[in-house]
Formats: sequence, structure tokens, C-alpha cells
Amino acid sequence: MREQADLPDHPRASGRRAPGVSVQASPLDLAQALLRCPSVTPEEGGALALLDRVLTEAGFSVARPVFSEPGTPDVENLYARIGSGGPCLLFAGHTDVVPPGDAAAWRSGPFDGAMADGILYGRGAVDMKGGIACMLAAALRFLQARGPNFSGSIAFLVTGDEEGPAVNGTVKLLDWAKARGERFDHCLLGEPTNPSTLGEMIKIGRRGSLTGKLTVHGRQGHVAYPHRAENPIPGMLRLASALAADPLDGGTAHFDASNLEFTTIDVGNKATNVIPADARAVFNIRFNEGWDAETLGAEIRRRLDAAAGNAVRYTLDLAPSNSPAFLTRPDAFVDLVSDAIAAETGLRPTLSTTGGTSDARFIKDACPVIEFGLVGETMHQVDECVPVADLERLTAIYVRMLDAYFPTGA
Amino acid sequence: MREQADLPDHPRASGRRAPGVSVQASPLDLAQALLRCPSVTPEEGGALALLDRVLTEAGFSVARPVFSEPGTPDVENLYARIGSGGPCLLFAGHTDVVPPGDAAAWRSGPFDGAMADGILYGRGAVDMKGGIACMLAAALRFLQARGPNFSGSIAFLVTGDEEGPAVNGTVKLLDWAKARGERFDHCLLGEPTNPSTLGEMIKIGRRGSLTGKLTVHGRQGHVAYPHRAENPIPGMLRLASALAADPLDGGTAHFDASNLEFTTIDVGNKATNVIPADARAVFNIRFNEGWDAETLGAEIRRRLDAAAGNAVRYTLDLAPSNSPAFLTRPDAFVDLVSDAIAAETGLRPTLSTTGGTSDARFIKDACPVIEFGLVGETMHQVDECVPVADLERLTAIYVRMLDAYFPTGA
Ligand SMILES: [Zn+2]
Ligand SMILES: [Zn+2]
Repeated sequence: MREQADLPDHPRASGRRAPGVSVQASPLDLAQALLRCPSVTPEEGGALALLDRVLTEAGFSVARPVFSEPGTPDVENLYARIGSGGPCLLFAGHTDVVPPGDAAAWRSGPFDGAMADGILYGRGAVDMKGGIACMLAAALRFLQARGPNFSGSIAFLVTGDEEGPAVNGTVKLLDWAKARGERFDHCLLGEPTNPSTLGEMIKIGRRGSLTGKLTVHGRQGHVAYPHRAENPIPGMLRLASALAADPLDGGTAHFDASNLEFTTIDVGNKATNVIPADARAVFNIRFNEGWDAETLGAEIRRRLDAAAGNAVRYTLDLAPSNSPAFLTRPDAFVDLVSDAIAAETGLRPTLSTTGGTSDARFIKDACPVIEFGLVGETMHQVDECVPVADLERLTAIYVRMLDAYFPTGA
Repeated sequence: MREQADLPDHPRASGRRAPGVSVQASPLDLAQALLRCPSVTPEEGGALALLDRVLTEAGFSVARPVFSEPGTPDVENLYARIGSGGPCLLFAGHTDVVPPGDAAAWRSGPFDGAMADGILYGRGAVDMKGGIACMLAAALRFLQARGPNFSGSIAFLVTGDEEGPAVNGTVKLLDWAKARGERFDHCLLGEPTNPSTLGEMIKIGRRGSLTGKLTVHGRQGHVAYPHRAENPIPGMLRLASALAADPLDGGTAHFDASNLEFTTIDVGNKATNVIPADARAVFNIRFNEGWDAETLGAEIRRRLDAAAGNAVRYTLDLAPSNSPAFLTRPDAFVDLVSDAIAAETGLRPTLSTTGGTSDARFIKDACPVIEFGLVGETMHQVDECVPVADLERLTAIYVRMLDAYFPTGA
């Protein structure tokens, strides 16, 4: 448990008040204050200090563990809980953001939190300071309505290392919490899950990710004397083609087909009269729950060996993967969140497993986890933004979820 | 016609005399003196000045034109002739050499011209200062035996830009000579043509060379969302495989089959979760006289278009080629050189068109040209060297050639 820092002194839009538990739990106020914290990974930027103050004033116990690892920057994290009994519903997320890129290309400063026509602009607006603000506002509203003595617990697990190496973030924070006896029944991770309209998609799992480096070995020589050399490029063409020739599978009930993409092929030979010694390629596979890193590695080697025969010499280097495929099977909790979304938006969300990886791959070992947040269309882009109406509506969905998760009669 | 420079003051092996027409036309003395000129392209290094002096003293008219071209270094060249009537036999070659590489790796300094166990070491020993020395010694011996009034002419065309860009060398020297009314009947280019034993191979032609750059265009994106991107790598695999799938031809009477080698494929994408925008490849084709740059370009485009269909967008950039395939059809001159070789070595040389390009690709437009010189095994390598016996024997072959080309009765 660290000493709490004061709120950082960020510039404010005229007329807006500083956020705090005494305000009416406004997701706009909270999002705007968070956007003004320049928390590009691994910088805390004042964002966790802000959550700390708001959650503490709302009655949460707040801890701010800092994690270290040789070769990576130290990262600040936050864990908060109110209530001691079960069930415990965990809100998870991150306050770090990707760099703004060319700040001059933005319509307003990427850390200004400026409003225009009912839309809030800034790096992290949807990924995921906006989502964090909605979770926070929903918890405050729930507590204001029900008081602190509801039957159960609400926890927040917020990292500053999701967009970076993800080494000093959620993984260690979960271990830290487990060591302190913290147990969770369900988790809602607030990543932006909707492709274009709020309410259309919940993520109930994610594909796994595996990266491989393929090197084909030859022998350097002069193009005029190819029989004295051994060109590795035809071998690379053959092996790479064989690797990508057939689909890995046809998909499963909840997952798309596993997919392999070559991300680069490089030889780096500048001499047009020289046959090079080696050719290198990198591929990435997004795989469904029919595979794990071991079975997938075996299939890759089987395909390469079949194509190589005795004619091609290759080396395969499979990066150790901490991104397994996982699925939270649809159950009462998924229905509860789905109902909250439907009641607020009129949409029945798709249960999806598409897209990139997220920290849910780590949380799934602690408790069932699903993801639902804002619309991801502008994430990681210039002029990332969120309509204020979406912030209000997502807050309302989270409040409905809390109300259903902690029924008054319980 | 330039003023003649003095002989450069090179260190000499003990007991060896400076070469000159007054010596006994020793190819060893001449080769050793040339090796001591550090004439790495484009440096003259004293080598042409040495030839100038020896040829002038032997009665040749000598010119030393310097050629320039924007963006390339000025290069010195030499043209010499004795006699005014026909037929005119042209000796061609170069005194520039490739860099020595790691000089410390040599058994003796690469420009020392050191002897050990009857072998002469130095950069250019076989490619082709040794060959130049043999031509020169043969001409001196021939003139000493026959006097200057033989029926015909002997010319020397020696460049200092063969190993470099080959822009300010033989091409311009031939134009320069043509403009002065110089005409040649046959040319002997003294490049090292024998793979391992002196006498085993004459080159009567060379394959052409054509370089192509292939770019496949895609659309960048995230590996988790491949349907929103367009990976250029599968398209590159398809096009490159199609280009190399079938042989271009089956070879001809005097040529091997044309051959395509990919020399590099590059994407340069370091992010393993990003689908890249473009993939680039370079290939080089060594082609026989069944093709020229135009017909070959059309065949390449036909293969690429067939493989690309509407699915792959590509750009092909064919470098303008000044390396056409050429063949000097076996005739009386080839027989004459062949007989001289057989008489001296007991070997009947193969008539070959293998290997890389040479300045013969330019000379063939002025007159029939064949190549015969030393053993190329050590060319361009550390400890490039030539047995003194080979220098003597090649000189004797050239003398026999001159005797047969200019018969006493004529
Ligand atoms: Zn995120
Ligand atoms: Zn050469």
C-alpha cells in the first residue's frame, strides 16, 4: 500500500470541475481528467493517482504496487476493493496508452481531452480510459444508490503495462492479489469490443498467438556459377508456400479458423550478382482452442519437414508464447451482461472471439472473464474519440450489470 | 596522346631488374612489375605508365586517353599499335584489379609481387596482370624475331575500368579507336579462362545478364485482422515461384540453359503483429543467345501476369542491360588459337560460353573476339597467384598464335 499522491495539476477545459467522489459520478468528467494524464506506457502520468483518490474517497481500499523486471521499466499498478464477502465482481483494465504519433496531426492536443459537438477527443478515449471512467462512474453510482453494505465485493485491477511489454502489469498484479488471498468470481475487462456500435459485441475468448522464425540455409556464390553455390531463396519459397498452403483448421463453434500470416521475409543482399547464404522469414499464427503452442509447433515442423525433404536445410525458432487461446463458455454471467446490454441499447450482442490478444489471456486463470467496452473504431489512431452519449450509455450498462450481479434481495 | 610518365619507383625483389624492351621479354619480370602497381579500380597505380614505356620502346604508337562521365571517377586507358596494314590482331585486357580485401590475411603483401617456390603472388596475378604480361612478352618476342616490318598490325587495348562500373573503359576506348579509323580483324582477350589447368578452355562467347526488381503491393494491417489488410507475402511467394518454376530453355549448341537466380527478397518488417504493405525481390538471369533483353522481358511479364491474375498487384522494374549474350562462331581463328594451345600444352581446349560477363560483350561489336588466359582458380581471392611456368607457357602459346596469324610467307 503506497502513500497516495495528490491529483496532478492538469490544465482543464473552462468551466469543468475536478472529478471526485463528491461529483455526480460523471463518466465524462472522469474520462476527461484521465485523458489529460500523459500516461504513454510505461509512464503513470497521474492516471492511477486519480483513480486512487476517487476510489479511496468512495470507500475502497486501494493499493498501488510497483513491479520490476531486469531489462524492462518499472510499472505502477492499482488494486482496489470494497466489501469482503462473496461474490466478488472484478473490473479490469489499463490506464496506459499507445503513443499519440504525430501530435500535430490531431485536431486538438492528444492529451487535451477537448470536446467538440458532443465528442471527447484524446489518446485513450476508447482504449481504454473511457472504459475505465465508465466502470468507475458505474461503481460510484451503484454505491451511492445501495450504500457500502451490499452483499458481495467489487474490485478494480488496473495496470499501466498493457500496451507495452505486459511484463510488469496484469500478470504480476494477479499473482500479487492471489498471494494476498484475493479471490474473484467473475471479471469484466473494459477493452473496446464493439466494431462500430455500442452493444453489438461481447468478447468471450481470444485466439492464441504464436510467432515463428524460419531460416533457410544455403551457400553463397556468384550468380554466373550457380552450381558452385546453393541459393536459399527457392527453398524459402517452397517452405513458406507449404506452410501457408492448407488451412490449419475450419474454425470451431466459437472461433474462426486459425490463421497464419507471414510478417516478413528478408535476405538483405545488395549485390545483384551474388547468390546469398541465408533467407529468413517470420510468421505469426492466431489460433483457436483446438491448438496449443506445442501441438501447433509439431504441425508446423511436420509441414516444413514434408516440404524440405533432403533438399532444403532450415532452422525453425518458435518464440515461447504466453498467448494461449481461451474461451469463457457462455453461462449465466454472460447472459447477465448480455441482458444489461440489450436492456440499455436494444441490441443483443454477438459473443465473439475475434481480434488481437488482451490481458484476458492472463485473467482467465483467476476467474471467468469476458470483455465489453466502447466502440474500437478509432483506437490507436489519430483523433481517437468517444461520443459522450456512449460514455453515458456504457456507464448505464455497467450499473445494470452491478444491480443484477448483486440483487437487492441477496 | 599524353606525355609519357616515368616508371613509378616501386620496391623490387633483390636481384630483379626493371623490365623494359631491352630485357629478354620476360613475362615474370613484367608481371612482377605490374603487380607492384596498386591499381585498384579506378586507380591507374603506375600500371598503364609501365605498359606505355615498354610498348613505346618496342616501337608501338601509344595513346593514353582518359574518359569521364558525371557521377563516375575519371579513368585512364591505353591504346597502342604497331604496323599500319591488315590484318590487325588486337590484344585486349585490363590492368585494374579488385581490392585485396584483408591485406593481413595474405601470405605476403598483395602488391609486393613476392615469389615463393616458383609461384608469383599478388592481386591481379591471374586477373589479369599476369595475362597482360604474357601478351606483352609475346609481342616483344615476336617483334624481336620478325622485326617491325611483318605484314599486318598488332594492337593493344587496355583499360583501367573493367572491375568497376565499366563505364569509362573498353566501351569508350572502342568508340575512341573507331573514330580514329582503327579497325580490327580479330581480338584475343586475356581474361583467365581455364578452370584448373592451362589450356583446357577457350571462351568463345558469354551469356547475357539481366536484372529485375519485383515488388508485390499489399495493404498494411494487424495480423489479428487479416481481412482488413492485404498481405503481399503470399503474392510474392506465388509470383516468385512461378518465375522460377520452368526452365527458360534447354540450352543451345554452344550455351548452357539460361538460368534465373533470385538474389534477394526483402520486406523489412520488424513488428511480428503487423502485416506489411510491400514485398520486394531482385533476380538476375544469365541467358543464352536465344534471348535478348526484350524477348526475355516479355517472357518474364507473361509468367508474372499468368501467376498474378487479378489477385496480385505487382511492379516489375527491369534494369537496362548492357550485357547481351554473344557468340563468336568457331572458325579459322578459333582453330588457330586452339592449335597453338594444343601444340604447347597437349590439351585440346573446350570451346565454352560459361561464367560471368567480360569486356568481350563490348568488343564483339568491333570484331570477332575470343578469350584465353591463365587459370582463374585464385582470382578475386586472398593469395591470388600464378605459377611462373604458366606465365612462360601462356607467353609461348601467344607467340605461336602470332606466328600463325602473321605467316612468314605473307
Ligand atoms: Zn486496450
Ligand atoms: Zn578480369
